[in-house]
Amino acid sequence: MDKAETSARKLSADAARRFTATYRVASAAADIEKRARAIATEQSVEMPVEAIRDAQIVEDIVGRVESIDADGPGHFRVRIGLAVETTGLEAGQLLNMAFGNTSLQPDVELLKVDLPDRLVGAFGGPRFGIEGIRTLVGAFGRALTCTALKPQGLAPEALAKLAATFARAGIDVIKDDHGIADQSYAPFAARVGAVQRAVTAANRETGGRTAYAPTISGSPSTIVRQARIAHEEGAGMVLFAPMLAGIPVLHELVRDHLKVPVLAHPAFAGALRIAPSLLLGKMFRIFGADAVIFPNHGGRFSYSPATCRGIANCLRADIRGTRAALPVPAGGMSVERVAEMLEFYGEDAMLLIGGALLAAGDRMPAACREFVAKVRQ
Amino acid sequence: MDKAETSARKLSADAARRFTATYRVASAAADIEKRARAIATEQSVEMPVEAIRDAQIVEDIVGRVESIDADGPGHFRVRIGLAVETTGLEAGQLLNMAFGNTSLQPDVELLKVDLPDRLVGAFGGPRFGIEGIRTLVGAFGRALTCTALKPQGLAPEALAKLAATFARAGIDVIKDDHGIADQSYAPFAARVGAVQRAVTAANRETGGRTAYAPTISGSPSTIVRQARIAHEEGAGMVLFAPMLAGIPVLHELVRDHLKVPVLAHPAFAGALRIAPSLLLGKMFRIFGADAVIFPNHGGRFSYSPATCRGIANCLRADIRGTRAALPVPAGGMSVERVAEMLEFYGEDAMLLIGGALLAAGDRMPAACREFVAKVRQ
Repeated sequence: MDKAETSARKLSADAARRFTATYRVASAAADIEKRARAIATEQSVEMPVEAIRDAQIVEDIVGRVESIDADGPGHFRVRIGLAVETTGLEAGQLLNMAFGNTSLQPDVELLKVDLPDRLVGAFGGPRFGIEGIRTLVGAFGRALTCTALKPQGLAPEALAKLAATFARAGIDVIKDDHGIADQSYAPFAARVGAVQRAVTAANRETGGRTAYAPTISGSPSTIVRQARIAHEEGAGMVLFAPMLAGIPVLHELVRDHLKVPVLAHPAFAGALRIAPSLLLGKMFRIFGADAVIFPNHGGRFSYSPATCRGIANCLRADIRGTRAALPVPAGGMSVERVAEMLEFYGEDAMLLIGGALLAAGDRMPAACREFVAKVRQ
Repeated sequence: MDKAETSARKLSADAARRFTATYRVASAAADIEKRARAIATEQSVEMPVEAIRDAQIVEDIVGRVESIDADGPGHFRVRIGLAVETTGLEAGQLLNMAFGNTSLQPDVELLKVDLPDRLVGAFGGPRFGIEGIRTLVGAFGRALTCTALKPQGLAPEALAKLAATFARAGIDVIKDDHGIADQSYAPFAARVGAVQRAVTAANRETGGRTAYAPTISGSPSTIVRQARIAHEEGAGMVLFAPMLAGIPVLHELVRDHLKVPVLAHPAFAGALRIAPSLLLGKMFRIFGADAVIFPNHGGRFSYSPATCRGIANCLRADIRGTRAALPVPAGGMSVERVAEMLEFYGEDAMLLIGGALLAAGDRMPAACREFVAKVRQ
């Protein structure tokens, strides 16, 4: 093969620019340099570098080990520079370049991705973010409240009745349970219409501005159709699980189809060997989530306080050109924990309490009012 | 609330039917019954069961612990029956009900999902499968051969030249490297056109029937557009990474848009705490993949022979109403291993050797012919 022919002449100056991925790697000290180079190759050209005849590809496209640091016994923190150009500025491909094949190697965890402004700018991040959600529900200078319509199996009228109770209590955002989809017992259009009408009526009664976030899910054409119905019915937000629907679907949804904020749900995201602060905190936000639900420490899930703080920090961190997103700690929370959660997360957060309110039985409306009052204090 | 009102009267008889999910759970023996019930709740109604007032929901929708068996020290195998109705017969929602929230709990691994015929039938599985791919490339009574166009960074003409060499050597399927997407150095339409023309010309020369599988990727509308271009250019297959694009996207793609077989790639699938035989073997197939690439044992990835055999078995298992899919072991394979791989997988498999062929340098065409000859023997 002629070298000139194989050369990709049009590699722009941009191709030289890198984003970096930081991995935690289990390795003996003697092997780590070789292992780090292997990851750099796996995540870029995925072939023996010595067999590449095009010097420009070796220079511009092959991943580059930027640093290796010890990180506890038998572990190292490896930072690898990857060409921005390889991502095609597309969400799925960015994840592919950061962790596609290496996700199949159990000695490696993806901890961190640092993106140049151009790459962040290509996605745009939240269209509403914390301030947009505050404006939507008219909640300023305090944390927000959120609860969930459950259980699935209820018919639209029963869900609507529940929503009315929540809205009358003054809860800011009522979301569908993440298991509520488009099932025969509560088809999407019937459910969203009934619940939104109930919330609108309750808002009229109380003068409140409770927003309803129906779950939109399914394959891409279904998601677009459901988003349209949600708009037509006047839903103020939507609930969406990017790891079930697809990360690039989130980005296209917010870019092309959705006029209201996205409340992202972590379903199916937990088993990944990716730091939660990166996936739920940074990537969900960059690809367009306005608010992100995650398991709070001390509930039904095992996230530590440090992990939760990391997620919240990533959602609210100053990233040039991108709005901050709202942290939504959840998962087995109770009204008793409100003060402690407010202390931990501060006012730029939305507390989500679901089952614990429903478990109050006949006292449920009172429990909702107590929840709202404690957060507004 | 009035009980009659909250009841979902229209729960059909079908709602009583269950699919089962089997989890491996780390737990003390004294706690496992409670833990199993908690998983059954988490994966269905996600609220305290005692707070559900509708008896029919408790009966039909709440997950049910079917069995608990010891599974090694400190571990149990828990089988849970979940209502088919909760899935809405949709791919993402099926995964949500099987592992959505529980994926966030590190003591649980999803091992197995058993689906009733109706649920399998709702997806349809491979449209071509093993026999369809054999017919496409004219390969009967033997294993198939596959290689990859690499490295990314090459311009379309260089990739086309490489493809011509592979096709002249008689390799059955030439796929894009999974890192090749829609990048500035090789835009999708230019690349697919150039490569397919080269393969077509080589086929005309040799009388062979090599198929080209371009990577299609990106957000849903991009994927549909790329599928259309691939058809127009005459590509025989496509390469697609369901975990990057979204599982429901795979299903909609094969159902509504794609006229050629899908070669599924495991990128981003490895870090999940889901048995590889279930995700790559069974679910990819059921949602429509015709052939599935996975890391062979003894290569750059850590899958054991048993894991690889499990994946291959799931792809080829007799499932009523569904075609068998083609196992494609890969990941650091070499021509030297062909005989052993044929012994291990039998003839209903496609061997994928990528980098090792390219590493042969000037001997690359000869290495390709050797690969083909060894498999055809």
